Amino acid sequence: MQEKIAVRTYPAMDNREYFNSINPFGFGIINTFEDPITVGLSNTSRLLGKAEGFYVLNSFTEYTLFHLFTANVTEGKFKGTIDIFRQMREAEPVRYLSVVGGTGAFLGARGLATCRRVEFDSTHPAKWTLSFDLELYY
Amino acid sequence: MQEKIAVRTYPAMDNREYFNSINPFGFGIINTFEDPITVGLSNTSRLLGKAEGFYVLNSFTEYTLFHLFTANVTEGKFKGTIDIFRQMREAEPVRYLSVVGGTGAFLGARGLATCRRVEFDSTHPAKWTLSFDLELYY
Amino acid sequence: MQEKIAVRTYPAMDNREYFNSINPFGFGIINTFEDPITVGLSNTSRLLGKAEGFYVLNSFTEYTLFHLFTANVTEGKFKGTIDIFRQMREAEPVRYLSVVGGTGAFLGARGLATCRRVEFDSTHPAKWTLSFDLELYY
Repeated sequence: MQEKIAVRTYPAMDNREYFNSINPFGFGIINTFEDPITVGLSNTSRLLGKAEGFYVLNSFTEYTLFHLFTANVTEGKFKGTIDIFRQMREAEPVRYLSVVGGTGAFLGARGLATCRRVEFDSTHPAKWTLSFDLELYY
Repeated sequence: MQEKIAVRTYPAMDNREYFNSINPFGFGIINTFEDPITVGLSNTSRLLGKAEGFYVLNSFTEYTLFHLFTANVTEGKFKGTIDIFRQMREAEPVRYLSVVGGTGAFLGARGLATCRRVEFDSTHPAKWTLSFDLELYY
Repeated sequence: MQEKIAVRTYPAMDNREYFNSINPFGFGIINTFEDPITVGLSNTSRLLGKAEGFYVLNSFTEYTLFHLFTANVTEGKFKGTIDIFRQMREAEPVRYLSVVGGTGAFLGARGLATCRRVEFDSTHPAKWTLSFDLELYY
């Protein structure tokens, strides 16, 4: 399969400029995170490991979060890491991310991570709970 | 195939230090972008979607742009996303990037994105037009 | 294989907040790097190319470096690029990273990069030597 596409840039925004500007969707902001991964959705659910990485807010017209992170699974039957790439649009109830690699029990994994936002507390600082369904192949 | 290589670090440059320094090739600067993807190279060409992500300038001796972005194709026959990884050297007329994943019509895509700079307007803020040829496999 | 996991966020830390705070493990700091790749571990070993990319410090409780970089191999029998993704825990003597793509002699590579820290000089600015064993498949 061959596709030919063109990308024409709007002026890229230097992230330094952001720091002195007002931007309704936080374009250019980078957030780092280190969050618990659990079996289920409640706060008392069994811990499996940590999701560690960062995201970049990257739209002028809506909230989109470009994610690069690793799910570090240190407990349970399958131990290893799963590497995830792609952005989430906050407006979409279901978001599809790419699994681009893995180690341990997930060595060489590729596939699809289907993510749903199941809870959101916008009180500053905002907190949310996401569920992930992973379809992995090797 | 097995390769053994060594990487020896020069002192890494904390990006914060950059903000107070002069750097001819912008080493450490991060730019976020949200750019139109069109079928052809002209400004009036049919819109296919958006390229959204960011790049990091990452050389002391030339302009290199380390890209991480998703081509979000929302119009046309094939709808979905294509995840792209790797740096472009401005000095190279043809640049090869890696396709590391995709969703929708491009689910599980891997392959090569061959990128050419077809137009460049250096007037601040700089604008450029890139063409991409994608060779995808699944 | 299907896995279902949940990720619950702690409040993400805006990197701007970091710049005004004290943080023992540098959470949120981004470092860009452009480092020599050599055949062997000594400073006089034959140069193969450059490792170029960046890492994000992304833990509150230990040093972890989330790496995104390309090994640009410009000398030797095999010329091309190798794209690498994942974090290193400083506490681990052996770290496993994912190879997510490549070009040239490494076109379409995937696999595992096993990294060992063989030398570390903490004198500011810190310098270290890493060895990489690559297991690639196509």
